[in-house]
Amino acid sequence: MLIGKVIGNVVSTRKVESLIGCKFMQVHLIEDGKETNKYLVAVDAAGAGIGEYVLISTGSSARLALPADAKGNQIPVDATIVGIIDYMS
Amino acid sequence: MLIGKVIGNVVSTRKVESLIGCKFMQVHLIEDGKETNKYLVAVDAAGAGIGEYVLISTGSSARLALPADAKGNQIPVDATIVGIIDYMS
Amino acid sequence: MLIGKVIGNVVSTRKVESLIGCKFMQVHLIEDGKETNKYLVAVDAAGAGIGEYVLISTGSSARLALPADAKGNQIPVDATIVGIIDYMS
Amino acid sequence: MLIGKVIGNVVSTRKVESLIGCKFMQVHLIEDGKETNKYLVAVDAAGAGIGEYVLISTGSSARLALPADAKGNQIPVDATIVGIIDYMS
Amino acid sequence: MLIGKVIGNVVSTRKVESLIGCKFMQVHLIEDGKETNKYLVAVDAAGAGIGEYVLISTGSSARLALPADAKGNQIPVDATIVGIIDYMS
Repeated sequence: MLIGKVIGNVVSTRKVESLIGCKFMQVHLIEDGKETNKYLVAVDAAGAGIGEYVLISTGSSARLALPADAKGNQIPVDATIVGIIDYMS
Repeated sequence: MLIGKVIGNVVSTRKVESLIGCKFMQVHLIEDGKETNKYLVAVDAAGAGIGEYVLISTGSSARLALPADAKGNQIPVDATIVGIIDYMS
Repeated sequence: MLIGKVIGNVVSTRKVESLIGCKFMQVHLIEDGKETNKYLVAVDAAGAGIGEYVLISTGSSARLALPADAKGNQIPVDATIVGIIDYMS
Repeated sequence: MLIGKVIGNVVSTRKVESLIGCKFMQVHLIEDGKETNKYLVAVDAAGAGIGEYVLISTGSSARLALPADAKGNQIPVDATIVGIIDYMS
Repeated sequence: MLIGKVIGNVVSTRKVESLIGCKFMQVHLIEDGKETNKYLVAVDAAGAGIGEYVLISTGSSARLALPADAKGNQIPVDATIVGIIDYMS
């Protein structure tokens, strides 16, 4: 799992049909509590807002945190925000 | 998910049968809105053109954005352009 | 597989339902017996404590070391502590 | 997908049974048309020869480009040469 | 696939049940025939010994080279030694 800080959104109108409704967030990774310049885009499954610290799951696991599409198929997402961080200790 | 800028095409005539019809695009990754020299090739599922900013899904999720082959099997692709970016904010 | 040293916890109250009950641990990777600054978060399946050296499985394999959720589905985890290291030789 | 240049072979006699018959190729990655020192080994599914530029699929997709073993199971390969590059533009 | 040199063992007594019996090996990656300081741990499926050069499969493919556990499930391994290298040319 990765820790990230949400820094913005990505808007894509023309996209594959199964991604309609996904909220794409720009993220900087947090390592040892510090913001890095490592960058990725993740789909939000946890109601994250800009500036929040979040927990991200990648790879095939990213799909398991998101609902299937209208045909019941998993959607083509490889990084998902699965939680909001309260604190690290 | 990754953000990329489409910088060119790749043409491969001799390839495994299940990849016939795939459009292979050369991509530079975009991080924090800036083009990097990180490089990959992705199959286009979103009608992307040269110079466009795109959203890319990698790993097993890349296959889910592409139709199955003639035998109904998933095809051996590990990076797919799944959307065209309108803007990032 | 990766070797890590557990350096702390991550607490997330608002998270996807299937992750309820997961214990998230901050980890520094160990390479050649030395602690590095490479950082990740893994879910504990082995009863690990702070300061212990652990064996970590990543990707889809991470899910196989954890119980399914209440609906019998695999949970969206991409790194799991699967063992406590006794020694390396 | 990755672009690679085939630079040699790897010979392994003692190997897991399901890999018998696989042709293992040493590859340098090509990025922006230039050979890098990034190195991997891929199984050939496209009839590639030394010096040729090839298209490589990685991860679980690599298995989909190769025949199943004698028992009908996918084989433990994580990088496969799936095409020969004609040109990049 | 990766090429590695086996440099040691890892012993873990407290581990998830499905990993009982696995032999964990410390590995340095070999690139262009030279030992690097890139480090990982892989489960041995090929009878590898210390000092030997080996072929490693990673990700979900790593599981396919190992027997299922007592309940018939795949085990949570993400890197497996699948062959011993005779020579590279």
